[in-house]
Amino acid sequence: MSQNVHFLTLATPDLDAARRFYVDGLGWNALLDVPEEILFFQIAPGLLLGLFDAEKFDQDLQRGSTVREASGVTLAHNVDSEDAVRSTVATMRAAGGEVLTEPAPGEFGGIFHAHVADPNGVIWEIAHNPGWSVEADGTVRLG
Amino acid sequence: MSQNVHFLTLATPDLDAARRFYVDGLGWNALLDVPEEILFFQIAPGLLLGLFDAEKFDQDLQRGSTVREASGVTLAHNVDSEDAVRSTVATMRAAGGEVLTEPAPGEFGGIFHAHVADPNGVIWEIAHNPGWSVEADGTVRLG
Repeated sequence: MSQNVHFLTLATPDLDAARRFYVDGLGWNALLDVPEEILFFQIAPGLLLGLFDAEKFDQDLQRGSTVREASGVTLAHNVDSEDAVRSTVATMRAAGGEVLTEPAPGEFGGIFHAHVADPNGVIWEIAHNPGWSVEADGTVRLG
Repeated sequence: MSQNVHFLTLATPDLDAARRFYVDGLGWNALLDVPEEILFFQIAPGLLLGLFDAEKFDQDLQRGSTVREASGVTLAHNVDSEDAVRSTVATMRAAGGEVLTEPAPGEFGGIFHAHVADPNGVIWEIAHNPGWSVEADGTVRLG
């Protein structure tokens, strides 16, 4: 099994709130938007983020579960500087995000970061990480 | 805020079980493996999957939560044919995955898929999706 993820799908209780946050607030472009069902964004080469209506998410898994939002998961967005962490967090707050931890030095790796929840409780880490880089071919380097 | 995710981090109650499944079972290569802390795999250009010890995951968020595993999230891995769905699911089962839904036609989009949970409850969808493609530059097309 090759080491690739092609879709990252999150149970989303309020798809309209997600659209307001990502499209109207952050200016993202949806690849596909099916109201009351799913909203797709491309978030890396070859990878889509699917925000999937929480009830349909449950039905699709046929597990009879009552998962109503994503938990135990964070999405990280890296930026070039500590100032860019602050400005990105300000943008997310203005778009309706809830700042969980204000921009501050992290506990390891020399990073500077903050955590922001989107309107559906999806937690983003906005970080400047001097030890992280991506080569031209997409290979990630750490440390 | 640009439309990019650079790390996808999942709360992982049993990192040793994760290592046995992904590294020993599926043959994946870890970019970084810090026992009892975190295991990183590159899963798309510019994107790392971090399987993060669940207790440390909680501490990092400073929320006093008791999240012990990821839920409300699925990771999809697309393959070229229905037979490749079946063989990938067999590989995952042999590696210790739990098959939640056997390979079968999906409800929409002409897909053929199955769901498999890893030893930490992370749900994978293994799919053949004829309407999905990725261009040379990484742009995803749907339908």
